[in-house]
Amino acid sequence: MEKLLNNAFNGDPRSIGRLISLVEADSPSAKEIMKKVYPRTGKAMIIGITGSPGAGKSTFVDRLIEQFQAEGLRVGVIAIDPSSPFTGGAILGDRLRMQGHALNENVFIRSMGSRGHLGGVSRSTHEASLILDACGFDVVLIETVGVGQSEVDIIKIADTVVLVLVPGMGDDVQIMKAGIMEIADTFVVNKADREGADKVAADVQVMLKMLKERDWVPPVTLVSSQNNTGVDEVRKILHDHWNYLKTTDEGKRRRFLQLEMEVEAILRGEISALTEKVWKKRKDAGVLEDLAARKTDPYTLASEMISQIIK
Amino acid sequence: MEKLLNNAFNGDPRSIGRLISLVEADSPSAKEIMKKVYPRTGKAMIIGITGSPGAGKSTFVDRLIEQFQAEGLRVGVIAIDPSSPFTGGAILGDRLRMQGHALNENVFIRSMGSRGHLGGVSRSTHEASLILDACGFDVVLIETVGVGQSEVDIIKIADTVVLVLVPGMGDDVQIMKAGIMEIADTFVVNKADREGADKVAADVQVMLKMLKERDWVPPVTLVSSQNNTGVDEVRKILHDHWNYLKTTDEGKRRRFLQLEMEVEAILRGEISALTEKVWKKRKDAGVLEDLAARKTDPYTLASEMISQIIK
Repeated sequence: MEKLLNNAFNGDPRSIGRLISLVEADSPSAKEIMKKVYPRTGKAMIIGITGSPGAGKSTFVDRLIEQFQAEGLRVGVIAIDPSSPFTGGAILGDRLRMQGHALNENVFIRSMGSRGHLGGVSRSTHEASLILDACGFDVVLIETVGVGQSEVDIIKIADTVVLVLVPGMGDDVQIMKAGIMEIADTFVVNKADREGADKVAADVQVMLKMLKERDWVPPVTLVSSQNNTGVDEVRKILHDHWNYLKTTDEGKRRRFLQLEMEVEAILRGEISALTEKVWKKRKDAGVLEDLAARKTDPYTLASEMISQIIK
Repeated sequence: MEKLLNNAFNGDPRSIGRLISLVEADSPSAKEIMKKVYPRTGKAMIIGITGSPGAGKSTFVDRLIEQFQAEGLRVGVIAIDPSSPFTGGAILGDRLRMQGHALNENVFIRSMGSRGHLGGVSRSTHEASLILDACGFDVVLIETVGVGQSEVDIIKIADTVVLVLVPGMGDDVQIMKAGIMEIADTFVVNKADREGADKVAADVQVMLKMLKERDWVPPVTLVSSQNNTGVDEVRKILHDHWNYLKTTDEGKRRRFLQLEMEVEAILRGEISALTEKVWKKRKDAGVLEDLAARKTDPYTLASEMISQIIK
């Protein structure tokens, strides 16, 4: 284990991949790994890239990797694969294309499944980003699936959230994304060569004015990932936001909030592992039948189980 | 408390409203109320109505209330109000219109806030539906906000999930809703007088064929809430689905799954109340600063706190 960790910390891609796999599989060594990983973290810029399926996130991420590489930075990428049967094919195709980067030793790309029905950003995703941080990547890009809760959860682990929009998605989608608008630190209007891109940018500006004022005003950038225009501007914005976070109270507040959520998530995980045993025993004894027949109620049952576990 | 409960169980609207408020505010009496409520539940059809903002859910719910009333059934409605500033106005307007029904003693309508950023279906929503069930309503309609996770969470508390679609929302929205398609027990294509309604119905049929086969094949109904056509058909389907759940293994499996999730949600709630005290004490002692400085790590910290709480 010591050797695997050292190799990974020295940048060996296979060892890094192995660490992520062990943590993703929640192996018995996972907690020990993370305890060793954690003290080395806090250096990388963790950037979440979110936006609807079809917004061109993967191509944009490709371009961003190139830009950061040109600066001499090492880039780690976590691409969350959807579990839905409807989009799996297309996204897998994107991933294969992106593997072109994988030949370069300063880029590490990892696909991760999205556990649970809709949530794309799981605890494993977070732990993988911490591992990449500890292994010396300067930038960690997390590309979400772009459906449902995943887009909001990214705020829990990313320093900076990029929302990728495209012309032609319709107003309904924009409105549905109201909750997402509020967590974005910067907006990218992708496929800017298409008609309607200026309109999307203007709409975003209007919606931003409706949100409560913040010190950091999210910039809106017109980008064409195909023609590679505007990406350099986004790269600069990402550095600016990183500096903003490092030097302001808002940045501190956000880091503390993330740490809080992180500890709480681990607590929840540990405690549910403990309660699971007690719960399983009650289920095996037929308590669900009793509940269905209203012989007991969930509140009484929960109290009973808690008194079995808690001091 | 005894008197309040009895009045509510006898159908007094003010007492019912008061019970829901006490539970929603998580007052000290909430658990005691729910323990008294629970044995009386399991009789009402709990129906979740979901679909995008703008799909015409409120008008459809209005029509459905009328249909059930015509059968002599008592109908309780929980309408989840969005917390987003972007849709609040319109939905509040809908609610006011719907209050027309509130004058009738066999209809009870309650608006509830959606706690958390996007989640529309909270534990309070569930508890409110149990209260309405216990107070003798034959049908409980839960209308979700129609954004994000709320639409999937509805399966945890509803016996039957209705997904309301409309022509003209575009394919992207349909695909984004992939996770929702899978939980719908019946589909309503609303505003069926509009062009494209047949196409939407056909698309849904195609997507249903892609899902894994189930005993219950979700029907797709063309509805015009404005012209009041198709709603009676939906009412019949809802009764059919209720009978299906009451008489099949699949129905039993689903009820048990809901009970499981319910007990687990209560357990989580109780345990987090317990851990919160320990956690707050550590935070007050500056542990977030230690974490930020990497003097400790979240995993070690969580273990320490757990050993303080657990037997």
